[in-house]
Amino acid sequence: MTCLLIVAHGSRREASNDEVRELVKAVRSQASHFESVESAFLELSNPSIPDGLRKAVAEGHQRIIILPYFLSAGRHVTEHIPAEVQKVRDEFPNVEMELITHMGAAGGIIQLLLDQANA
Amino acid sequence: MTCLLIVAHGSRREASNDEVRELVKAVRSQASHFESVESAFLELSNPSIPDGLRKAVAEGHQRIIILPYFLSAGRHVTEHIPAEVQKVRDEFPNVEMELITHMGAAGGIIQLLLDQANA
Repeated sequence: MTCLLIVAHGSRREASNDEVRELVKAVRSQASHFESVESAFLELSNPSIPDGLRKAVAEGHQRIIILPYFLSAGRHVTEHIPAEVQKVRDEFPNVEMELITHMGAAGGIIQLLLDQANA
Repeated sequence: MTCLLIVAHGSRREASNDEVRELVKAVRSQASHFESVESAFLELSNPSIPDGLRKAVAEGHQRIIILPYFLSAGRHVTEHIPAEVQKVRDEFPNVEMELITHMGAAGGIIQLLLDQANA
């Protein structure tokens, strides 16, 4: 039972948080490798990263893949998100929580940017 | 003469700003539709958006495509970047400055996210 937790920054603009939730719905409908796909937010929206992780554990997932939905590896990616994950890791030592590389490092990002610029 | 100006948030972590500059270099090498491809930052790094736009104008570009390198349309995308662009638009009424949709709205983002999660 693996959960994909997509972690976004969070915004004071609720429409922006809803944009992330809609993306998560779309990913869920196409994600064959994951039993569930959920969102969490570093700040300004809910659930928080710890709450998102606790919910996934409560639902019975033994493995959680955490994907930082960020384009650049600034301090949010290198320090703040790992610190939030670490809080919950210590609560559930038997659950595998794997923090993977942020979106901006994806190989296809250059082509996507060119597509967007040429659209 | 069209310039593509890729606008990122900017970070206190200089390696993150360098990651954006490296991306811009890679895009430049593959961008056949643009005479130049440059970066600018909303905050915490250089050049600022106004300075990036002024540089493009000084280099003779009559058209500048501004791409917000952001995944969600929070207040940075909906308010702060448009306000920075507007400052310079008024200085150069004969230069076309087109602010296009942020990266997160690109059609291929869901597939890219799945690729990253499955990697």
